[in-house]
Amino acid sequence: MVYDFWYWPTLPGRGDFIRYPLEAAQIPYTDCARDAEDGFAAVAEHLEAKQGCHAFAVPLLETGSESIAQTANILLFLNQEHGLGPSDAAGMRYLNQLQCDIADITEEVHAVHHPISTAFYYEDQRDAAIQSAEKFREQRIPKYLAHFERIANAHDGDWLLEGDSWSTGDTSIAYLLDGLHFMFPLRMAALQSDYPTIHQIQQKTFALEYLDAYRASDRCAAFGTEGIFRNYPELDAA
Amino acid sequence: MVYDFWYWPTLPGRGDFIRYPLEAAQIPYTDCARDAEDGFAAVAEHLEAKQGCHAFAVPLLETGSESIAQTANILLFLNQEHGLGPSDAAGMRYLNQLQCDIADITEEVHAVHHPISTAFYYEDQRDAAIQSAEKFREQRIPKYLAHFERIANAHDGDWLLEGDSWSTGDTSIAYLLDGLHFMFPLRMAALQSDYPTIHQIQQKTFALEYLDAYRASDRCAAFGTEGIFRNYPELDAA
Repeated sequence: MVYDFWYWPTLPGRGDFIRYPLEAAQIPYTDCARDAEDGFAAVAEHLEAKQGCHAFAVPLLETGSESIAQTANILLFLNQEHGLGPSDAAGMRYLNQLQCDIADITEEVHAVHHPISTAFYYEDQRDAAIQSAEKFREQRIPKYLAHFERIANAHDGDWLLEGDSWSTGDTSIAYLLDGLHFMFPLRMAALQSDYPTIHQIQQKTFALEYLDAYRASDRCAAFGTEGIFRNYPELDAA
Repeated sequence: MVYDFWYWPTLPGRGDFIRYPLEAAQIPYTDCARDAEDGFAAVAEHLEAKQGCHAFAVPLLETGSESIAQTANILLFLNQEHGLGPSDAAGMRYLNQLQCDIADITEEVHAVHHPISTAFYYEDQRDAAIQSAEKFREQRIPKYLAHFERIANAHDGDWLLEGDSWSTGDTSIAYLLDGLHFMFPLRMAALQSDYPTIHQIQQKTFALEYLDAYRASDRCAAFGTEGIFRNYPELDAA
């Protein structure tokens, strides 16, 4: 079984929330849009052709019998199918809840640089973005990171959740922190020492053999000024 | 078993996504904040006291052994525990995916009237909200409603998903449409005939005996100018 994975090429965006556990656990997948001549057109065509499967957007994982969309929903499937998290129902729900929290902050991050509408260019809503970023840096980042830090500190284990091995919660937190440090380098440098446990988890997650190899490869797209996590210096401050 | 349900009192907000199926299926629950003297303070105190359970926000459902947060995650639990949806894993995933889509548009609706930050009053970001609302009305509402209409038309059944009985997908779509009609009465009146199937589903859902009784009761809070769905006439147009 080799999954077909669909996401916009050349930007990590929401796609790396899925690629990270696929890579770290060495689950075979084809990154369909990356391998296409025009990956953006290929994604749009695939979504159009697959309207019957009812994915509103990518990321989308095709298993052969199912088309699974929505980041948290795909990760829940990977947990259940590949044991990348708790195996009991309550534990899976708890991890799913956490992934929904991460989806929420991810959505808020995108809204920082596109506060008025995704239909306008960043440059056409920059003044609103500057106001939005100030409140996000001051209030939302500490609120979310304190939440994740409490979760990580709720037990003595090495990972975000109880247990001896990493879960998709770890890969998601690691990726989220990476994105936040890229987008808000000054603010995150100022805050980092307040949230030591999740940063240790990030380091441990990034040291996982196959995730490390993925991140070092040219398959892993760098952050830039596309997608969710973007660095516009005017949106950052300590 | 009587669940303890927590949500801000006096506003339907995200809470009615949960209350609708609880009421329609006559699942016993206590609406804790509604019954409190100062419901807003009670929610804040409960979240603080329950930090160990790691709910980032309400809605929150306490089962006795679990504290379950995040709307889609609570609905997934209700599906699994009370059979309010497909009973097979693939069907549950599909419904969960749909609930995540509904969570996304709900978040976008809130961002229409608070585009820059929830830390500012509406009145202090009204100009941005007017721009945001125009794009939301023109582009996002039709895109989401066409998506849900396709799902509803994908089979010959009476409800959103295949099967003989309603699911949380139906209660969520019914509530979402109700909120959109309240917030954008002119735009939704202009669009309604383009999406007949989901509007029929809304009518059938609202006709469910116990949901109808709930909506007619004083337990069901009206939409207003708090919460997710708000009517500001300047944000609407056909």
